[in-house]
Amino acid sequence: MPAASTRVPQQQRSRATQARLLEATVDCLIEHGWSGTTTTVVAARAGVSRGAQLHHYPTKAALVTAAVDHLAERRAVELRTEADALPAGPRRLDRVVDLLAAAFTGPLFVAALELWVAARTDAELRDALVPLEARVGREMHRLTVELLGVDERRPGVREAVQATLDLLRGLGVANLLSDDTARRTALLGTWKRQLVTLLTPDGERH
Amino acid sequence: MPAASTRVPQQQRSRATQARLLEATVDCLIEHGWSGTTTTVVAARAGVSRGAQLHHYPTKAALVTAAVDHLAERRAVELRTEADALPAGPRRLDRVVDLLAAAFTGPLFVAALELWVAARTDAELRDALVPLEARVGREMHRLTVELLGVDERRPGVREAVQATLDLLRGLGVANLLSDDTARRTALLGTWKRQLVTLLTPDGERH
Repeated sequence: MPAASTRVPQQQRSRATQARLLEATVDCLIEHGWSGTTTTVVAARAGVSRGAQLHHYPTKAALVTAAVDHLAERRAVELRTEADALPAGPRRLDRVVDLLAAAFTGPLFVAALELWVAARTDAELRDALVPLEARVGREMHRLTVELLGVDERRPGVREAVQATLDLLRGLGVANLLSDDTARRTALLGTWKRQLVTLLTPDGERH
Repeated sequence: MPAASTRVPQQQRSRATQARLLEATVDCLIEHGWSGTTTTVVAARAGVSRGAQLHHYPTKAALVTAAVDHLAERRAVELRTEADALPAGPRRLDRVVDLLAAAFTGPLFVAALELWVAARTDAELRDALVPLEARVGREMHRLTVELLGVDERRPGVREAVQATLDLLRGLGVANLLSDDTARRTALLGTWKRQLVTLLTPDGERH
């Protein structure tokens, strides 16, 4: 079947081209921000022809949305792998919060924030991003529940997980222009102790 | 003293021109975002000549930084006035958190976030904003302590106030692209109950 044998390398090449474009997009967003990210700059950075770039991602909105989606999936896999390596026991919650805090101060957060803010005043980007934001938000919530190993059916657990993610988003913004590590570490130290109380049945205050 | 009598109206005119430029800048940032905000557009919107605009604020960085500073001061005055009108008693904390949550989803937050994100990749803006961010952050913290009527020397109070502001910043970002009011209201309901425990001496868990 000669058709199949040429089709498979073709698909692999397409996937490799797409991956190079998406990585270059994220790098570009982090380095130059939304306004400095153009499809031409991204194609050059990825070493991909303009034609191939337009074939895979016809608009800037399509390209940047796919890039953040791609990075979010990769970060979720990395977070699971890192969390799998954590020892069980009472310190596990602390380490999971540290992993999440690193995610909210890392490249995915910075690239996503560039898009969220740009989308506020760009209708095409906004239409593409709103469903992605909702999906990534749900997946991040589910992943956090899984990594913490908690049962969301218990009262207060869902709210505690939500508050943790909203707090981490706020801390991510506070870290944008200056290194906020010392303050964040101290604050999360307090938050971890509260979280133990909120998440463990014996600590319930209601 | 004829010199004084002409100087005073001149100063008043200058202040009125500055105020019009700063209000137009904030409106422009909210409507068009960082990249759609130019000094030319702002001058036209404020009904101020290019020459007068350049006289008061020679660069875009100077203009937008002054605008956010101006708005932050005005919002602080408004927050104090609104808080002064709140009744004392057990519901006061809830109402103060509601006022702060409104601030973190309002025009000042949106305009400031446009600048924080743009400053990440714009060295001139960043140099102007970093000291402003630090000062506005400190003042917001002090104002929150004052509105809540709590004593920061008590253990845990400083951290609880910080966590509240970081949480509200995260909730502000979550509200950028879609109306997150229902989720935020539910989450803050839980947070207010926690905050009472953290801020009142009897509720201390340490």
